[in-house]
Order: sequence, then C-alpha cells, then structure tokens
Amino acid sequence: MDLPSTFDVIFPQALPSTYDNHTVRKLSSMKGQFADQQAYARLLDKEDVVLYEVYEFKRPQEAGELLYGISVVHPGKVGDEYYMTKGHFHAVRETAEVYYCLKGQGVMVMETPEGDWAVEELRPGKVLYVPPCWAHRSVNTGSQEDLVTFFVYPGHAGHDYGTIEQYGFRKLVIEVNGQLQIVDNPRWQAPGERP
Amino acid sequence: MDLPSTFDVIFPQALPSTYDNHTVRKLSSMKGQFADQQAYARLLDKEDVVLYEVYEFKRPQEAGELLYGISVVHPGKVGDEYYMTKGHFHAVRETAEVYYCLKGQGVMVMETPEGDWAVEELRPGKVLYVPPCWAHRSVNTGSQEDLVTFFVYPGHAGHDYGTIEQYGFRKLVIEVNGQLQIVDNPRWQAPGERP
Repeated sequence: MDLPSTFDVIFPQALPSTYDNHTVRKLSSMKGQFADQQAYARLLDKEDVVLYEVYEFKRPQEAGELLYGISVVHPGKVGDEYYMTKGHFHAVRETAEVYYCLKGQGVMVMETPEGDWAVEELRPGKVLYVPPCWAHRSVNTGSQEDLVTFFVYPGHAGHDYGTIEQYGFRKLVIEVNGQLQIVDNPRWQAPGERP
Repeated sequence: MDLPSTFDVIFPQALPSTYDNHTVRKLSSMKGQFADQQAYARLLDKEDVVLYEVYEFKRPQEAGELLYGISVVHPGKVGDEYYMTKGHFHAVRETAEVYYCLKGQGVMVMETPEGDWAVEELRPGKVLYVPPCWAHRSVNTGSQEDLVTFFVYPGHAGHDYGTIEQYGFRKLVIEVNGQLQIVDNPRWQAPGERP
C-alpha cells in the first residue's frame, strides 16, 4: 500500500534525514555553461569541485503525483560567475514548481521559451512560485553558506536540459567589486534567431 | 503574462507576507465534527472561536499547476479533542499533497476510502508526503502555539469535504491526563457498512 511518509530537515545544515536518491553535480558536468571558459578550465585542472547536490524522493512520474526534495548549491565562483545548477525547462512545459528556501542566500534565474526573463531573490523563509513554462536555475550568491531549497513539482513534469545547455539563460549572475550584478549572456540567442 | 511570484514566511508567527485569499474557520462551521457535542455546545455558547485559518495563492485549477499556501491551526480543545481542520479528500482522488511544518506541534490524521488510517507527527522542519487517495486533517496538539504548515498540491485536485463531514475520520486525537491519545471515533463506519 501507498503509505504517507515523512522526513526531517535537519538544521543548521538543512539536509534531509532520509532520501531515496542523491545526485552530485561536479564542475566537469557543466562544461560550456559558465561564461569564463578559461577560469572554468583552470578550476577544473585544480579540482573537479562539487557545485550542487539534489536529494529526491521516489514517486511515480504521473499527473496528480508530486515530486519533491532538497537542493543544495555550494558557495563559490567560476571566474566572476556564482556556482549554479544546470537549470532546465520541464519536458511538459505546462507544469509549475514551488520552492521554499531553507538556508543561505541566492537567486532563481528564470526564462520563458519566448525569451522573457526574471530573477527572484532566495533567502530563508522565502517561497517562490515558478509558473508553467518558465525554465529555472538556482544560483548561490553567498560567500560561505550553502543555498538550500525545498522544492515540489508535478509528477509528470519531466526535465529538458538541452535547450539551456545549448544557449544558457539570457542573464548571468556575477560578482563585480563584491556586488551582485545581472548581466547579458553573450552566448544567448533570441528564440527567433536560433538556427 | 504569467510572472514568477514570491512571498516571505515571517517568523516567529510563520505567517505569509502576502496572500490572495484568507479563509477563517470558526467553531460554528464544524457542528457535529467534534466527539463531545456537549462540550462543543458549551464552548460555542461562550464564544464562536476561530479554530483555523488558511492563506492561499490563486492559480488556475488545472493539472500541471500547483496550489499552495499556509495553514494555521490554533491551540485549544473541544472537550478532550484538540482543535483541528475539517479535513477532506481531494475531489480527484489520485492527487497527492506535500506539507512542510513551519511552527508548532501537531499531527496529520489520514485515511483512505478503504478505511486504512495513519497519523504522522508534525513539528518544525518535518516534511510530510500525503499520497494520492488519502484524506487528511491537521490537528494542533500543542498547548499554546499555533500549528503552522506550508502546503502544496496539484491544481486539479479539488476538495471533497462531504465524506468526512458525514462520518469523521476513523481516529480521533484527544488528550488524556496531559497525554496525546489516538482513539476510535464512535461515529465512524467502515466504508463497506455505510448505508
């Protein structure tokens, strides 16, 4: 039978007491995704650091179900660009996602297939609703702490990483003289101008 | 355009900084739902107290969408029975729900249309996954604090209050000599024995 289940978010780390699946994304899995490719190569040469981790709970990938878990983006930068997740659209575009920020400081970078963009702050106690069709990427803008969020999305959403891998997001989040800046991504092309 | 949106959970009360809809449920709206009907009548005679409140965000009621908000159950008892929400099945039975407990002490009472039941503890940092088909009711078992949870469920779920209104949940949560007890609800009938 399909029983209710629980886990605890254990503070101060804000990590889950249990989980079904643990994904670890290292620098080497994000080739071409950071703007400063020389800084990327130098850092990778030194160490294939862990950029982020995702703890997930297994549920059927069906409408009516909810997939949920904890995302942890570690602090750091590749050149001037903060550590971030790969970011993705949902394969079924018409599916939303909800985040609750548990720990740290960061932003969610979002965009639509038409090229509209948005950046929203994440900090403990912040709830973020990502509407259907918006690709999303978590960025840790803190200097020392992990950025930890609890996420929930519909079971049938699926993931499309390809579009973002090819062009990136329209906006990059970088640090200039100790200040967060949101700048254009030179690699990005407007959807209408893509080959 | 459908833009991302955020709100803050403001501590220590754990109330939302903004919301679209605020529902206030008073004692008078739960006639027949508490086991001790004399205690219910006495309390109502004195004051139509607020049992719980729900803060919600408006989204289309469609598959792929997520409905989310904050539920606040106040502390107190009707006789020996703790303040609780009405509780409901989702109208579309095959839809799940996820809770994150923000504040207080309580339990979620759950049951299936077949009469299986479960009770899970809620305390700050606890995540509860309610599988499809399980009716659910929040109960504040604390003596002074509000029980506050953040909830997310699929947009097309809907609500069916009628089944629970008629028979209640199989289990009641009461306090005996200062201790929480889970006892049978005399009003409940096994689904196969209902008229």
